[in-house]
Amino acid sequence: MDYTKFYSDRVKPMKGSAIREMFKRMADPQIISLAGGNPASELFPGEELSKISEKILREKPAQALQYGTTDGLPAMKECAIKRAKKVDAYTEGDSVIIMTGANQGIDLTAKALINKGDKIIVESPSFIGSLNAFRTYECELVGVEVEADGMNIEALEKALAENDGVKMIYTIPTFQNPTGTTMPLSKRQKLIELANKYDVLVLEDNPYGDLRFSGEEVPTLKSLDTEGRVIYAGSFSKILSPGMRLGYIIGAEELLTKIEILKQVNDVHTPVLTQMMCVEFMEKYDIDEYIEKNRELYGRKCSAMLEAMDEYFPKGKVKWTVPEGGIFMWCECPDVSDISVLVDKALEKKVAIVPGSNFAIDINEPSNKFRLNYSSATIEKITEGIKRLGEALEEI
Amino acid sequence: MDYTKFYSDRVKPMKGSAIREMFKRMADPQIISLAGGNPASELFPGEELSKISEKILREKPAQALQYGTTDGLPAMKECAIKRAKKVDAYTEGDSVIIMTGANQGIDLTAKALINKGDKIIVESPSFIGSLNAFRTYECELVGVEVEADGMNIEALEKALAENDGVKMIYTIPTFQNPTGTTMPLSKRQKLIELANKYDVLVLEDNPYGDLRFSGEEVPTLKSLDTEGRVIYAGSFSKILSPGMRLGYIIGAEELLTKIEILKQVNDVHTPVLTQMMCVEFMEKYDIDEYIEKNRELYGRKCSAMLEAMDEYFPKGKVKWTVPEGGIFMWCECPDVSDISVLVDKALEKKVAIVPGSNFAIDINEPSNKFRLNYSSATIEKITEGIKRLGEALEEI
Repeated sequence: MDYTKFYSDRVKPMKGSAIREMFKRMADPQIISLAGGNPASELFPGEELSKISEKILREKPAQALQYGTTDGLPAMKECAIKRAKKVDAYTEGDSVIIMTGANQGIDLTAKALINKGDKIIVESPSFIGSLNAFRTYECELVGVEVEADGMNIEALEKALAENDGVKMIYTIPTFQNPTGTTMPLSKRQKLIELANKYDVLVLEDNPYGDLRFSGEEVPTLKSLDTEGRVIYAGSFSKILSPGMRLGYIIGAEELLTKIEILKQVNDVHTPVLTQMMCVEFMEKYDIDEYIEKNRELYGRKCSAMLEAMDEYFPKGKVKWTVPEGGIFMWCECPDVSDISVLVDKALEKKVAIVPGSNFAIDINEPSNKFRLNYSSATIEKITEGIKRLGEALEEI
Repeated sequence: MDYTKFYSDRVKPMKGSAIREMFKRMADPQIISLAGGNPASELFPGEELSKISEKILREKPAQALQYGTTDGLPAMKECAIKRAKKVDAYTEGDSVIIMTGANQGIDLTAKALINKGDKIIVESPSFIGSLNAFRTYECELVGVEVEADGMNIEALEKALAENDGVKMIYTIPTFQNPTGTTMPLSKRQKLIELANKYDVLVLEDNPYGDLRFSGEEVPTLKSLDTEGRVIYAGSFSKILSPGMRLGYIIGAEELLTKIEILKQVNDVHTPVLTQMMCVEFMEKYDIDEYIEKNRELYGRKCSAMLEAMDEYFPKGKVKWTVPEGGIFMWCECPDVSDISVLVDKALEKKVAIVPGSNFAIDINEPSNKFRLNYSSATIEKITEGIKRLGEALEEI
């Protein structure tokens, strides 16, 4: 049977193979993966969460296993607000919705805002998960180049001036995925000014903000917003556990009421047990202490990667960003026309990296860039992986 | 700030207040709720799941807390297949996707199929969560009347003959929500014939199928499908725990590949821990034994409700369905023009019921029907609730 005629327009152009392919690569235990976005599993508080889950299910099974409310457990919402307040991302009167991962918040925010043909301004390159979520609402993505210090603000103004129908700006201002870059305060102020001037909303995606290991903290866009234009997406994936799928969005009540309806018809609510576990973990343990351990480890892993790149990458063949936090860096091969040659060569040598085209607005445009992740592999494997990648670079 | 101009067309007509209002009602501990769809929490295997979660997080934290694959853990997919095989709902070569509750499967199936203006044939009345999910893709819902034995098949054929652009038929053939009715085999065969004849897909939603407490099992639509037209949505919400949010869809690989992409951009994957807990529960314990306990309890609760209705409802004022399983029954007040009078009166007496309009295709059309749930409240509360509802019926 041919299913093609049943497909909605939104899924017709979508191919699942690239995603499946990437997961397959990472499943091979022989492969050193510098490809994914996995946090360091060696630090997961398994012992603590084991005790917590045992206690919750023993003492409160009727709550933990029953239906919950769509916006999340009140105590879990308080946990989200607590994290958000640390970066001034919560304003009195804001609403909060607990999401099954921040990605759900991004998907449903787009669903609440985007009609076919509407425009979203995004960083170019940007996180594939968000770009693909946006694409499913048949919007037009308007890319704004990312520089060493984040979005090019002149290009942003130009994009706003030249495009009608822009509903929002989507940005990961801190330790951006995939580039690892961070927007300084001045650019953030200018971005908010432009959002006000051109009357558009801003979706600030901040999953990595807690993971700074050098440099100075920069205020969130949400903290600079005086008009209620910023929707803030936060996550527990990189500061507790991605497998638990706990994220949240914070923003104006009126707007979030619409998004809550979309969550209601999507997964009804985020699992109750994982919410209760997060609440109990934050009550019983110092999550900032746990985050500090992650920061320190990621700082060391990042340094190890940078050192290995200095040692093993052929001189002059690669340029890269030096992140102050987060989990990614971004590499460019100025003399290469299509990076897929390198990706394939690296895979022969059992190293997985993600080609830049995955993060592009136009995924068919050849890229000479690739993304490296340093949070997941051990330092030993990072060094070995970069060494092999250096060999691959020599050979292409 | 006025957000209205930013909203997508799909959310503009949606009001969140009804949903919020219903949750508020159920949160008041004074209220006897016959309104929700909660399974009996007194049977939840809290002790067993407590031990299981403790062990998983102690022994396999790196797996339980890390990112998983979008389609679900292989072992969890096997659990879903095992459940589906019991009702011949799995065919060799089918794909399976683990969903964060079956509702997500329904939402994303619609997202993969429906363009603005496409039509979905649904039972009238039907489950509000699915209807609202469909509405978010700006489809046209074509309602087919539900009789005492499910969808009126002549009306279905008429709907198929008279409507262009029908992409699928959505049905809960067993212990339907809200009516509690079950389609007999002959109707199911005819439905599949019509789907083949008119070349449309079928989404079979079967969350209650395991909960039969009287009468004979009827084959699933999926088991009667020879052309790969049926997408089967199954759930662990009513046979293990709704709070864990574990459901699945089964269907043709080609189709599910598209749906998997939509899940990837929606919540990336279903939480890993809850999947592992379900796998371990099904390995270590006999889930059918647990289901049997639920069936038996629901049978008793249903009988208690029917007895109380016989005793306390004013004669001739109410007609109701007698379900053979599931968790709902459906009541009609032939002499009432708008049931909201009864709903309000009942609420004064601290009993919550859901007005029929909530399940209608046209939610603004006044209804003389209401839905009762008997799985959630204790037998004592069911009897007391029906008594108060009887008083309310006397008074209107």
